[in-house]
This record gives sequence, C-alpha cells and structure tokens, in this order.
Amino acid sequence: MIHSDIIAQTNETAMAKLQADYDALGAHLDRRGIDIAAIKDRVANYGVAVPSWGVGTGGTRFARFPGPGEPRDIFDKLDDCGLIHQLTRATPSVSLHIPWDAQPAADLNSKAEEVGLRFDAMNSNTFQDQLQQQHSYKFGSLSHTNAATRQQAVDHNIACIELGVAIGSKALTIWVGDGSNFPGQTNFTKQFERYLDAAKQVYNALPDDWTLLSEHKMYEPAFYSTVVQDWGTNLLIAQQMGDKAKCLVDLGHHAPNTNIEMIVARLIQFGKLGGFHFNDSKYGDDDLDTGSIDPYRLFLVFNELVEAETQADFDPMHMLDQSHNVTDPIESLMVSATEVQRAYAQALLVDRTALLGFQEDNDALMATTTLKQGFRTDVEPILAMARLEQNGAIDPVATYRASGYRAKVGTQRPAVSGAGGGIV
Amino acid sequence: MIHSDIIAQTNETAMAKLQADYDALGAHLDRRGIDIAAIKDRVANYGVAVPSWGVGTGGTRFARFPGPGEPRDIFDKLDDCGLIHQLTRATPSVSLHIPWDAQPAADLNSKAEEVGLRFDAMNSNTFQDQLQQQHSYKFGSLSHTNAATRQQAVDHNIACIELGVAIGSKALTIWVGDGSNFPGQTNFTKQFERYLDAAKQVYNALPDDWTLLSEHKMYEPAFYSTVVQDWGTNLLIAQQMGDKAKCLVDLGHHAPNTNIEMIVARLIQFGKLGGFHFNDSKYGDDDLDTGSIDPYRLFLVFNELVEAETQADFDPMHMLDQSHNVTDPIESLMVSATEVQRAYAQALLVDRTALLGFQEDNDALMATTTLKQGFRTDVEPILAMARLEQNGAIDPVATYRASGYRAKVGTQRPAVSGAGGGIV
Amino acid sequence: MIHSDIIAQTNETAMAKLQADYDALGAHLDRRGIDIAAIKDRVANYGVAVPSWGVGTGGTRFARFPGPGEPRDIFDKLDDCGLIHQLTRATPSVSLHIPWDAQPAADLNSKAEEVGLRFDAMNSNTFQDQLQQQHSYKFGSLSHTNAATRQQAVDHNIACIELGVAIGSKALTIWVGDGSNFPGQTNFTKQFERYLDAAKQVYNALPDDWTLLSEHKMYEPAFYSTVVQDWGTNLLIAQQMGDKAKCLVDLGHHAPNTNIEMIVARLIQFGKLGGFHFNDSKYGDDDLDTGSIDPYRLFLVFNELVEAETQADFDPMHMLDQSHNVTDPIESLMVSATEVQRAYAQALLVDRTALLGFQEDNDALMATTTLKQGFRTDVEPILAMARLEQNGAIDPVATYRASGYRAKVGTQRPAVSGAGGGIV
Amino acid sequence: MIHSDIIAQTNETAMAKLQADYDALGAHLDRRGIDIAAIKDRVANYGVAVPSWGVGTGGTRFARFPGPGEPRDIFDKLDDCGLIHQLTRATPSVSLHIPWDAQPAADLNSKAEEVGLRFDAMNSNTFQDQLQQQHSYKFGSLSHTNAATRQQAVDHNIACIELGVAIGSKALTIWVGDGSNFPGQTNFTKQFERYLDAAKQVYNALPDDWTLLSEHKMYEPAFYSTVVQDWGTNLLIAQQMGDKAKCLVDLGHHAPNTNIEMIVARLIQFGKLGGFHFNDSKYGDDDLDTGSIDPYRLFLVFNELVEAETQADFDPMHMLDQSHNVTDPIESLMVSATEVQRAYAQALLVDRTALLGFQEDNDALMATTTLKQGFRTDVEPILAMARLEQNGAIDPVATYRASGYRAKVGTQRPAVSGAGGGIV
Repeated sequence: MIHSDIIAQTNETAMAKLQADYDALGAHLDRRGIDIAAIKDRVANYGVAVPSWGVGTGGTRFARFPGPGEPRDIFDKLDDCGLIHQLTRATPSVSLHIPWDAQPAADLNSKAEEVGLRFDAMNSNTFQDQLQQQHSYKFGSLSHTNAATRQQAVDHNIACIELGVAIGSKALTIWVGDGSNFPGQTNFTKQFERYLDAAKQVYNALPDDWTLLSEHKMYEPAFYSTVVQDWGTNLLIAQQMGDKAKCLVDLGHHAPNTNIEMIVARLIQFGKLGGFHFNDSKYGDDDLDTGSIDPYRLFLVFNELVEAETQADFDPMHMLDQSHNVTDPIESLMVSATEVQRAYAQALLVDRTALLGFQEDNDALMATTTLKQGFRTDVEPILAMARLEQNGAIDPVATYRASGYRAKVGTQRPAVSGAGGGIV
Repeated sequence: MIHSDIIAQTNETAMAKLQADYDALGAHLDRRGIDIAAIKDRVANYGVAVPSWGVGTGGTRFARFPGPGEPRDIFDKLDDCGLIHQLTRATPSVSLHIPWDAQPAADLNSKAEEVGLRFDAMNSNTFQDQLQQQHSYKFGSLSHTNAATRQQAVDHNIACIELGVAIGSKALTIWVGDGSNFPGQTNFTKQFERYLDAAKQVYNALPDDWTLLSEHKMYEPAFYSTVVQDWGTNLLIAQQMGDKAKCLVDLGHHAPNTNIEMIVARLIQFGKLGGFHFNDSKYGDDDLDTGSIDPYRLFLVFNELVEAETQADFDPMHMLDQSHNVTDPIESLMVSATEVQRAYAQALLVDRTALLGFQEDNDALMATTTLKQGFRTDVEPILAMARLEQNGAIDPVATYRASGYRAKVGTQRPAVSGAGGGIV
Repeated sequence: MIHSDIIAQTNETAMAKLQADYDALGAHLDRRGIDIAAIKDRVANYGVAVPSWGVGTGGTRFARFPGPGEPRDIFDKLDDCGLIHQLTRATPSVSLHIPWDAQPAADLNSKAEEVGLRFDAMNSNTFQDQLQQQHSYKFGSLSHTNAATRQQAVDHNIACIELGVAIGSKALTIWVGDGSNFPGQTNFTKQFERYLDAAKQVYNALPDDWTLLSEHKMYEPAFYSTVVQDWGTNLLIAQQMGDKAKCLVDLGHHAPNTNIEMIVARLIQFGKLGGFHFNDSKYGDDDLDTGSIDPYRLFLVFNELVEAETQADFDPMHMLDQSHNVTDPIESLMVSATEVQRAYAQALLVDRTALLGFQEDNDALMATTTLKQGFRTDVEPILAMARLEQNGAIDPVATYRASGYRAKVGTQRPAVSGAGGGIV
Repeated sequence: MIHSDIIAQTNETAMAKLQADYDALGAHLDRRGIDIAAIKDRVANYGVAVPSWGVGTGGTRFARFPGPGEPRDIFDKLDDCGLIHQLTRATPSVSLHIPWDAQPAADLNSKAEEVGLRFDAMNSNTFQDQLQQQHSYKFGSLSHTNAATRQQAVDHNIACIELGVAIGSKALTIWVGDGSNFPGQTNFTKQFERYLDAAKQVYNALPDDWTLLSEHKMYEPAFYSTVVQDWGTNLLIAQQMGDKAKCLVDLGHHAPNTNIEMIVARLIQFGKLGGFHFNDSKYGDDDLDTGSIDPYRLFLVFNELVEAETQADFDPMHMLDQSHNVTDPIESLMVSATEVQRAYAQALLVDRTALLGFQEDNDALMATTTLKQGFRTDVEPILAMARLEQNGAIDPVATYRASGYRAKVGTQRPAVSGAGGGIV
C-alpha cells in the first residue's frame, strides 16, 4: 500500500482532462440514450480476483528473468495485491495457490484485513512434486494408476477446502496436468474413470455453499493427451459430480481458432459456467495480459456475460491468471484488471433491444454493427472516474511509478538469482 | 459391375506374389503369437459404407473439374458403388443424400439388389435451397428464426426417415450448416434452443430401431459460429434427445491439433458414439482420401474402436465421406475403403494384454512401442487375401483400370461442362 | 449512383450529433496534442479498391444464396461500385477479374468515367476452366506439367496486362490454385521451377511502370500443398523475377496463429511489399468483412504501414477481397472500406515518439499501452466528417437503405436461381 | 557403455526371429526388384547426432520430474551418449550446448574418444542468464536494444566457435528466444536490423569450412513475436550472411498445419537447407520423441531428402532435439534414432522412377500409392540387422534394460530433488 497523498497528487494533475473527457463522453452517451452514471456505477461494483502467484515474475521452461523486489511469501504477495486494489479499486480479492501460500488461517486473515482484501477461490496443486511428498505426480495425480497417489491428491484437495473454509473462500479450483505424452501411454477411458472417482471424493468434501470449479486445458504440461482437455470433458465432469460442480474457462486453454464466447454461452445455457481465468494468447497457453492480443474477443465474452446477467443465480467467478515475464507484475495486473472492466463497460453499452431485433430479422450487418458500437466506444473516462470516486488512481501505472513502491520493496526483499531453469 | 473374368485374370497375375507375402506375414505373425487367419476373417467381415455423392467428382468454391463418365443420377451412382464393392468386398452399403437421391423406394431397392448393396444412413440436406423450395436456408434451417422455415426443415428430415424406412435404412444423419458469419448475427443461446426444439421433433418421428446421428463441425459454411460446432455441443444434443440419439464424428471437422481419438474414447465411454465419416485433412475440412495425410491418426481411432469391441451394444456406423477433386472417384473410394480396413487390421494386431500392463506401470515407451508394432506391420497381404477369398480383386485399382469401366461409362453418360462455379 | 438529395437529406438528420461528437473528439485530441483536422485530411485522401466480384453475393462449396438485384455483368458491377464510392468517398477504384469482366476497353473506360471510378490491379484467372478453353487447369496452370497448359496460362496473364494497359491499370495480381491434394502427387521442386519459368514470361511482358503482385495462400483449393503457400515462397518469387515484382498479402491466407503484421514489416524492410487484400477470418480463408473478427489485428497491420509511410517509394496497393454470403454486398463493402479507414486513422493517432522511447527502454507495458491508446480512440467522427466534407454520407448504410437502390436494381436485374452448387 | 557380452546375450535370444524376418523381407523386396542388402548398407552408414542435454530428464514451465541417475555434467552425458551409440550404432556424434557443457577441449576430446563419439554442431545459449553474466537477456540477446548486450551475445557465440574448432566441430547453431510479448514492445524492423548486424559479426568469425545454422521458431519463449519466426525470415538471414549460412529446420517450430516437407524442398532448391532438429509434436514445440505422433510426416521429410541425395554438396546435418519428460532419456533417444533411420529406409524403398512418371501424368492416386508403398513396408528387420552387423543390439531397449545401466548410474550419481520450478 502506498500513502493516499501520492494518489491524490497524481490524480490532481490528471483531474481536469478526465473531467473534460468524462463530460464529453457523458454527452455523447446521452445522445445515444445511455446514462453514463449508471454505467459507471456498475463498473465500480465490478471486481476481478488476482492470483497470488501473479505478483511474482513468471517464466518459461527456457528461463525466468526475475525483477527487483520479488515477493518472498504470501504476505509479501498480499502486500502487492493490496496495492493493486488500492490503485485500481477493481481487484477486491485474491486467489491462493496451495501449498505455495499455505500459512495459518489466522495469519492469512489478519494480513488480508490489513491490506483490504478477501479470499477468492482456492487452487490446489497436484502438478508438481513437493519436497517430502510421498508419491510423485510424474505420471498423474487424481487419475494416476496408483491408488495411493490418487488418495494423496484427493487429500491435498480436501486440505485446500479446509483452509479455504477458515479464510472465507467459497470455491475450489481444480486444474491437473494429468495426461500423456505418447499414444498408448494411458488408456483414455480408464484414466478418466479414475479421475471421476477421485474428483467425486473431493466433491463430497465440499461445504454446501461451495463450488467446485473444474478447469480444462488442451495441452501442456502433457503433450499428447490431457484428461480434462476441453469443455466437452469438463461438462461431463460437472454433470457427473453434481450441482455444486461447474466449469472454469481459461481463455488460453483452447484449440487454435476456437470460438470461446460460444462455449461460454453453452455453459451458461446449461447452468454450468462457474468462472473464468482471464488472460490473452496468440499461440498456446501464453498467459499474456488480458486484452493485449485480441481485445475484441474479450469483449465478445463479456457480451455473453452481460446478456446473461438477468438470469437468476448467475454469478460466475472472475479471476486473472497470467504470467508476467517481461513487465512489472503489479503493473500488468493493474492494467489487466482495467481491461476486464473495459470489456464489461463496453458490453454494457450494447443496445440489446436493437441487437435482438436485428438478430430476429437476420440483419447480420446491423447486428454486428450494433455490437461494434459498444466495443468502439472509448470508455476510459468511465473506468477512471469509477476509480477516482473510490479513492483509486486515475492512472494507476503512473501513480504506481511515482510512488517508488518497487524500489522500496526491492531494498526489503532479497534479490533472486537470475539463473534460468535449464528445462529445455 | 464388371465381368468376373476380368477380376480373375488380373488376380491370376498377382496371385503368386500375394501367396508368398501372405505366407511370410503369417509366419511372422505366428512368431508374435498371432493367427493370421483370424485377423483375415475379421477384416473380411468388416465393411464401410460409401456415400452416394462420393462417386461424383467434387470441387471447391473456386471450381469443379469433372471427369469423364460422371454419374447422372442415383442409379448411375449405385452402379459405381456396386463396382467398388465388387472389387474391394469392403463396401456393402451406400448412404443416400436427399433430395439429391430421392427416387421411388421400389426403384432404389431394385437397383440396390441388382448391384448387391444395402442402404446405410440417410442424409438430409437443409444447407442448400432447392428449386420450388418455399423458405430459404440462407440464414439457417433447424435453428432459423422463422418458425415456418424450421418446420420445413423438420418435415424434410421426417421425409428422409420415411424413405429410409422403405429402403431398409436404420439411421438418419443430420448435419446442418446453421451458424453465423458475424459476431452478433445470432444469439447463440436462442439459436441453440430453436435447434433443440426442431431436432426433437425429428427425433420423435424416429422408429424405435433407428438411430439419430448428429454431426458436429467447427466451421464452414458458417465462418464465425456454427450451431453444432464441436463434440461438446453434439453431446448435449444427444443427451437432450434421448437414447436413440448419438454423435457422429467426421475426422475433418475439428479444430487444428485436436486429439480426435480421445473424443472417440469419451463418446464411447458415455454411450454416445454413433458413427464416423472417414476422410483425411491437413488444414480444414479438406475431405481428402482416408489415411492419405496422417495414417497413424486413423490407426489411433481404430485402436479405440478395437478396444471397445467387447462392449455390449457397441456398433457405431462407419462411412466414408470425401471429396474427390483430382482423382477418379471410384479409385479413391476403393483405396480409402482399403485404408479403413488397414487401420482396423493393424489395430487388431496390437497386443492389448501387454499394452495394458505397460499402461498400469506407466511404461510410456513400451506402451507406445506396443501400439506402433501394430501400426508398423504391413497388413496388405491380409487385406488382399480377404478380398481374393471373397472374389474381389487383389489389386482393385489395377483391375478397375484393366476393365475399361470408366471409358465405357464415359461413352454412356454425357460429358459435364467444365465451367467452374465462380463462387469466390 | 443515387440522387445527391437523398444523401443530403439523411446527412441532415445526423449532422448535429456528428458535429457534437467531432467537436468533442477534437477537444480530446487537442488535449493529447493532436490536430484532428490533419488526421481527417489524411483519412480523406485514403482510398481502398473494391473487387468487381465483391458486389455479387458469394458462397461456399456447399451453396450460394443470391440476393435480389445481383449484378449481371461488369457494367452492373461498376454501377454498384460507383454507389459505394459515392456514399463512402473511400473506394475510388475497382479491381477487375478476367475473363469475368473482360469487355472492350473503351466500354470499360466509358462506364468507369460515368460512375467516377478508376481501375486498380488486374486479376487473372487460371484456377477455373472456361468454356472453349483448350487445356484444363484441373492439375495446375502456370506450374502444370504440360508445357501447352503453362503457355495458355502465360498468354492469359499477358492478355490481362494488355487490357489493363488500355484501361489505365498499373498492376497485375497473380493468384493460382496450383498445388496438390496428395503427398507425392507433385514434385515440389520441379513444380516450383515450372512456376518460376512461366511467371518470368509474364513478368517480361510487364510495362516498365507496372507491378507484378504475387499472392500467397496456405491452402484451398489445393489441400495438401500449394505452390505459393506462404510469404517465404512469395519472397523467393519476387526475388527471382526482379524489381517490378512484389508480394501481395491477403489477411486470410496464413496459417493459424500467424503474426501477419510481422510479415508485413519484413516485406517492407526488404522492399517487397506490393499490396493487400483486406478481409477478416476466424478459421481459414473465410473472406469475412474486414475488421469484423479481429479489429486489433487490422490496426496492427496499419501500425506497420503508418510506420513505413515516410519511406521513399513506399506505396503498396490496398484492395478489399471478401465474400459476402449473408449480407447485401454493397453494405458490406461500404462498412469494410470504413473499417480500413478506421484502422488507418487509429494508427495515425499513435504517439510514435513516445512509442520509440518505450521500445528503446524495453518498457513493454507502456509501449503496448501507447499503441492501444490509438486503437481505443473512437475515430468514427473523423471518418464521418471526412465523408461529409466530400459529399458522401455520414451513415452510408442508412443512406443506402433510405435510397431504395437495392429494390430498384432488383426490378431491373433478373432474379438468380437459388439452387446451390452441390459441390460437397 | 556396457559389456559386449550383455549385447551378445540379448542378441542371441532374438537372432532366429530376426533372421527369419530379414529373409522374408529380403524375399519380398526382391519381388519388388529391391536389393535388401543395399538398403541395409545405406541405413548402416546413416547417423543422427544426439544433443548432450537430451540425456537429462526434461520438463515444462510447470514442473520437472527427474529420474534416477541424472547426468551431473558433460562427462556423464557423454557416457550416456556413448551407450546410445553402442546399442544403436546410429548416433555417432554429440551436439554440445554452451555454457552447459563448457569444459577444456582436451578433456572433451579425451572423453569423446573413450566413448567412441565425435562432436556435431555447437549450440550457443543466449536465452538464459548465467550467474556472473554482465548483461541480462531478459529483453533479447543478438537483437537487444543495448549494444553492450548484443556484443556480449556475439562474443559468446564466437567463444562457442573457438571451443568447437578445438573439438572438431564444423558448425554453430544459433537459436535465440528474442522477440516480444506485447504488440508494440519492439519495432520489428529495427529489431531485425540489430539481429542481422550482430549475426554478421558471428558469421565473420566462422572458419572457412564451418556452417552457420540459423534456427527459426514460431513462438516460445516469446509469445507475441519472435525475431526468427519462420523459414521466410530464416531464409533472409541466410541470404544476408553468405554462403556459409544455412537454415536449420526443427520439426516442432512451425505454425499449426504447416506443410514442413515443402519448406524442406524449398530450402534444398535454393541451397539453404543446413540441417534438422528432429522431434515430434501435436500442439506446439512439444519436443516429443521423433515419429511418435505423426510418423508419415517424418517419412515425407525423408522423401525429400532422399530425392535430393544425388545433388552435389547436399549434406544437411541431422540431430535429435527432444525433451524426455516421462521416459528414460536414454531409451527415448535410442528409439528416436531408430525412427529416423526407419523413415530413411522407407524413403529409400520408394520407386522413384515410377513416382516421377505418375507425377508427370498427374496420376495423383498412383503417385501417392507409390509413396505409401515405401512407408508401409515394415523395415524393422533391416534396421535390426544393420545394428547387429555393427555389434549393436537387435533390440536396444531390451538390451539396455537387461544391462542394469540405469540402476548402476543411479547409485553413482546423486539423486536430484523432485521440486518443480514453480514457473507458471
């Protein structure tokens, strides 16, 4: 967290331009019959969770290039996350990854309160081996051929739920790397049966008000087959488990060219959309900053979400999940949270009555033009004003840079060696 | 059909080499503990349906280059299909496409009997407009926004069933091009609701011993979204319809890099694999000859099918579905039927007991080597001997060419103009 | 063309809002140090060619669904193209396709003058067979194994140049479908040698002030290999031919996930970027409306073009190339021309001095934010004002619909049968 | 290395079956007019280099799961590589990676002699930061904006050449991860200019009898753009450098659906094919075992190589480059070397005279059938006999397992911790 004076000062210099832009946009939207204040309020109430691991510098199998002030533990991470929310007012919660962030619940709660954050979904980890771990996950976890390994993975997930209950989380996200690298290495059917059996045990340990979020991914770390490879298999899992089980959509986990917004619509239609991991990608699971590669695709996803907002009980969880390899992670998370809000605001501007009419008439050109009109609108003044009115920063990155936060933690947190992993 | 003397003559010249190859392979398989005769019998009993439209030269939106002797109607097509089966003994049935092949049932039955064929699944067509058709499918068929258009599509499908009943078919395959070319053109959810409602009406008209095969496709002719875009949506359809509804997998209808054999395994596991359209592809729905681009992928699909053979009630339908743009369609269909049999034979050779053991032990290298050993075996002598023993041709293409069939029908059937469609 | 009164009337109703939006944007840009009038002038001077074939309804190999008033010949097409330019002031030239548009030069020139258009690049067609054509292109044209077929293709290209000279064109675009559908069907090297030999003959017939534009495409109509499959081969062609030969980039002709803007940059760097075919795509060569699927990608291409504008002799040709299957082609072309202008205007807004600084400092976050600031700006008022000041329409689609043009030509031009091609 | 008695013993048990299979294949090939002994001799003379890093267990950014007996340094690695060649007789050389393998030349030469190996191409590493390294490669190496960083990378490459000269290598392979993760992060053109300038300095340091191999890759570790992203850019590099510069093709470094064998043909045609990194992949740069996913694609590459064998001065380098995440690396490398030989042997069996005839006649079906006949032939007996006659193992994996080598080095080399990298 930084002193509120710094925010006030940098806001001061940007205030006049913002007000002028906001007023002009308000007048423009008024000409389109839209009340800018109502949009601003909905944006202000929108939040996206940040992943605890996102505030550390990410890397690839080839190398990781850490920056100064890398967080040493979950408490450093919560400091960074608190700052992100302080400046953006858009990230009220943090998603923990166990065992990386495993600490006594009381300590976690106390720190969260200090930095003004809640805890979002818990994330288990059965894709790595930890020191002292009895059974290796080299050949799988929840779907391993060895029953003891599966049990170990089940127990770990249940432990995640227990810690989550103690810190106020309401969901467990399961992502496994289980799969195979060679045709024939596994029997697809037996492997999936084992997965379903084990996942059911985790599901049965879930409190009534919790959600089990299952996450699919086309490939990586497994390179021939992956147990939960796409939304079809993910849907089967959610169906087999029960009402508390839903599907999580990571925007980077699909085959090339996939129409992701359509998958989102299908999952909504059948009551199985549980949440998102937002990021962007050009090739594989690149985990780039949200909206950095294809902002229109992000908008089209939010178009589906706004379309469904009126449904009862529709409340999917929203989280960023990115790897920040060449930027300051705090900056990338701030900008990304803003991009998510931007897509939401743009989707709110779509004239849905007109859109529906064009759709009924098969007027493809005007239908798509109606969508584009929402996307095309520069809603930056709305986002900035929403931040300002909640004591956030008009320009979070500029304020962050002015604050000297990174340099300060750089002196407090020991430098991390620059040696790469040599995993090629 | 051609005179059996021609077959006998060309077989005569190839007989000695085949016998030598067959004996050598038999000895080799015997050293691996496999009885070649048993494999040959299973191959001999295997058949794949040919599509009636496959015997005409195909094309692209840019052009079609017909060859000599293009079939003029379903009766010409049945002649060609009869010849394919006569030479390969691998294609005992034909799949009709309505309205292209709509003719009185008695005439169809009579012709089929004449050429020694049965009728496989019926295919409806609601992706084109026919002359005199009341409502256009330009903006969809079963999912059209206009109720009358949907009803027209439903009625057409029911008419296909009725004709099918009269000619001994037991399945209806539904593939629609419904989708959209622009973001916003359609409401994904409403469109799919309309599809499900309409499809349910078709389903309800299905005789008890029939199967409804729903076919998914990623894209084309719709280029932004497609109603039945992948196996996830296809599965939902089959679930919503009922037990008689199953999914059809066309090998060319998936996203780049998709693990198709895994989708096949999932559909088998949940009792929803209804059948196949075999072909091969390198880019999109290229409809190339089966096994011509990635024969190992075809083998891996058959590996799943052989794995599942012991299941009760497991009997998916097998059909070729290809576009023959640069070859004589009869030759391509003969070779492709052989390639399907080849993959089946290779999959039968896999030592499944050993494979299962390696899988249980996570011995990835030996598991994949075990698969490969099946694939690597040159089973051509088995296929050829199976043909020979059923009075087919050892070398169907050579015999076909020797027969002069194409030249003969070229004189009987008027030449088709070479002008392209100019659809660019 | 429509009466200018109609334009004036529809502009009248939109004028006040436009002026307010334009003034507000001008004030905003002024705060960013940008002169809106200068941007507007550059947009006004920007033009993109329309393809003559684009005003007819397109289709797929499955079907074509024509609309009312389909143009019957090049003169009808020029009427439609003239209207597009009248309303958008953005499409001053038309690109002809021979033999579809082959007519006496005098007639073409006279009609062009009447509708206020020039002629852009000539397009030859050796991917279809025409009636009376001696040698078929079924197995290739410029690269065919048969010398006479290659000569026929060469002669056709030279005839295109000759007609082009007579109507004031300055470029020939060569796109061939030559390739193969099966591994082994062609010898890659011999085929490319034949292509180079034949193309060289065409190149040698080029007037000194002409450009030969070679167009690459990954696949379709050939589905295993294509002679000019990517920019690497295209570059080799341009290098082998000489200075007058350059590469044409169609946005839909690349492999999935390809970074197209980088290819554009490479071709610029080595003096070989000749021009564009603009469109958009989600899967293959979908030929969707420009900017309809990924508008940011279009912007990134224009970012490279604006970056290179200061280079001497940098003047690539710009053309739309789309297939309008579900919209009124006139509407799609008007909107698409506007989208191209939009991307250009947004790219002009990028603060290139700041961008360069961030790039030098490896400040990835601020560099990409600087680009995004250009993209995010809603430049619609600039585009509309540029049209208005040139007597075009503020809202071309609304004006077009108000004019009743389509209904009028619908009565003049005979209806086209709705039957599909049956090429599956 | 293992005792020759072990090889002799395991060969003894497999000898009879091999002889029978070999004789049968010989008789079969004789019927096709092919001399099996000639094929065997060519296979026996074929070798593929192994990468020093390949004998360690690989991993992903998510985790690495080491096995027992991981090599500690280049000397352990050479022991493992020596064994691979001892058993397969197919891998006579090793490719070093600097600085991982940097040791005094005398020690390297001495060890290589001990294990019976030569040194293949040198590999530089400027994609990771090493301890004590002055300038970080976080934002690039040969193309970095900072001149000192570029110089450091140049100097490192020259050092690699110098060590290479001392150990008898004749080539330097350059692969850099330079690129960007965000649109705008780098200026494509300036970045490539810097790359070319720096690479030219390395080129100038090359001995006359050396080759500079430039390696392209679509993406990873950079996820928006990569400096040497495809063969087009790679070709430009080789052209700009000079005659000693050629392109290296890694089978896993291309866009989805790319026709790699065609790129190979193009590079051969223009004298710029320098060598290969063999592996296989289903999604991205999966670095799976060669031939494990699409063996026909591997065959098609070798079809081009055999086609070009008669050219003067055609001698591309062949190396495996794989990541062994779930298998014993020694086993994977042995099997992969065999797969490369298999593809070579199959390509040698193709009847090229017949193929050429079918190509000239546009007989696509028979042309592809002719290729397939080569691929379909089970050449395992040829490979095994070639190994046997050179005192290698008939079944390298079985012999290796029987030898107890892994268990033995497991006791000599300390266990590596199983903790993953936590790079997500």
